[in-house]
Amino acid sequence: METITSRQNPLMTHIRKLAGSAAYRRQTGQCLCDSPKLLREAAQWGAEVQTVVSVEPWPEPLPEKVRQVLVPPEVMASISPAKTPQGVLFTCRAPVLPVPETLPGRRYVVLDGVQDPGNVGTVLRTLDAFDADGLLLTGGCADPFGPKTVRASMGAVFRRPVWSVTPEELGDLLRRSGIPLYGAALRPDAMDARQADYSRCALAIGSEGRGLSREVLDLCDKTVLIPMSPRCESLNAAIAAAVLLWESWR
Amino acid sequence: METITSRQNPLMTHIRKLAGSAAYRRQTGQCLCDSPKLLREAAQWGAEVQTVVSVEPWPEPLPEKVRQVLVPPEVMASISPAKTPQGVLFTCRAPVLPVPETLPGRRYVVLDGVQDPGNVGTVLRTLDAFDADGLLLTGGCADPFGPKTVRASMGAVFRRPVWSVTPEELGDLLRRSGIPLYGAALRPDAMDARQADYSRCALAIGSEGRGLSREVLDLCDKTVLIPMSPRCESLNAAIAAAVLLWESWR
Repeated sequence: METITSRQNPLMTHIRKLAGSAAYRRQTGQCLCDSPKLLREAAQWGAEVQTVVSVEPWPEPLPEKVRQVLVPPEVMASISPAKTPQGVLFTCRAPVLPVPETLPGRRYVVLDGVQDPGNVGTVLRTLDAFDADGLLLTGGCADPFGPKTVRASMGAVFRRPVWSVTPEELGDLLRRSGIPLYGAALRPDAMDARQADYSRCALAIGSEGRGLSREVLDLCDKTVLIPMSPRCESLNAAIAAAVLLWESWR
Repeated sequence: METITSRQNPLMTHIRKLAGSAAYRRQTGQCLCDSPKLLREAAQWGAEVQTVVSVEPWPEPLPEKVRQVLVPPEVMASISPAKTPQGVLFTCRAPVLPVPETLPGRRYVVLDGVQDPGNVGTVLRTLDAFDADGLLLTGGCADPFGPKTVRASMGAVFRRPVWSVTPEELGDLLRRSGIPLYGAALRPDAMDARQADYSRCALAIGSEGRGLSREVLDLCDKTVLIPMSPRCESLNAAIAAAVLLWESWR
């Protein structure tokens, strides 16, 4: 077991960059996770944990090749992305997945311009709970491997694939896979979400401010509407995704 | 139109305290809201706006008794609870509602120990969208009038009542009102959420870490289960609330 006491140690610098920079995460193919719960999820779901940094020795077994490092609490505070560090954080392989040839599953979620990392992570967690097959991000969503996203996903990021695609790639991929795209939209001509056939589909949810982009709307085979009180303009993006995912699973 | 240029002006101090202290909000019966969208919602839904502070004159009509104050951007930055101030914030009456004699509506949500303000605000927004009648908070939830809660509610805090109650008050109130309490729980003896009778009920959701407290579980007439993949342990609290609210509304 290695001990590091300097905040300027290259590993500490590496961790701070992983916490702060999506470009650095992509370049290194790594991400930073920051809780005991996530470490257990990563171990359970076969994520490739690389380095575990903790203030007390991590009491559970880890694969032999994992680098284990002890740091004093003040060094932990300097590298943790959380306001209240939880005593352990780790780096983990987070490969950028190439756009696949086809999507073999039955149900997918497409997020379009959803910038809030908590929402992206929560959608991953929910689609995993309701057994959808993966997440496609387009239009400048939050990085799926940012610390806040990973935390909100509660480990679902280790269990479900996430692809980043352009609208054009999305259209081609869905066409090749024979999967229709349903866009959540508040349009009077949209189909009631209770009536849609979800046996095989991708569900597109737009950003809170603007809804689905023109490009993604143009790819939609149908738009679906979640009926709600006329007082309300919209739902939170993660809530809209959850309602459609539940409706497709129930 | 008044102009204030000092960060030490008593109004600026008042606003910072409203942003930072739940005790001060309760003591003054006021809250702080921080976006043009919320100001429009407050105006539309008859919330009692007291002071509007902006970097440009607010272009829309406001009741005559509203105090309007212009500040330079650096003063706005010093009082705004948002990382990116949106140019306008306002104080608004946020009275602590006394526990009512009875609940006249059909559907309510009870949150038990949900500390994340985003989750509490999102539940308010969702229950408003799916036409439930109010929110009851117990067990140390986030302040419904904190800036993050109000923002996540997207103005639903102006449209739907929120009460803070002890578990004992909750039990008495539901009994007096003849409203059964359904607790969301992952217990094998819980009823499938698709089979419950939601015609009149309160839906209790616990904290993410611990679920419902013993005290609230003891008040439940039924527990309901949202079926999900065996891979997953739980849903985000706002997502669990949304699924039950949708199920009771669809």
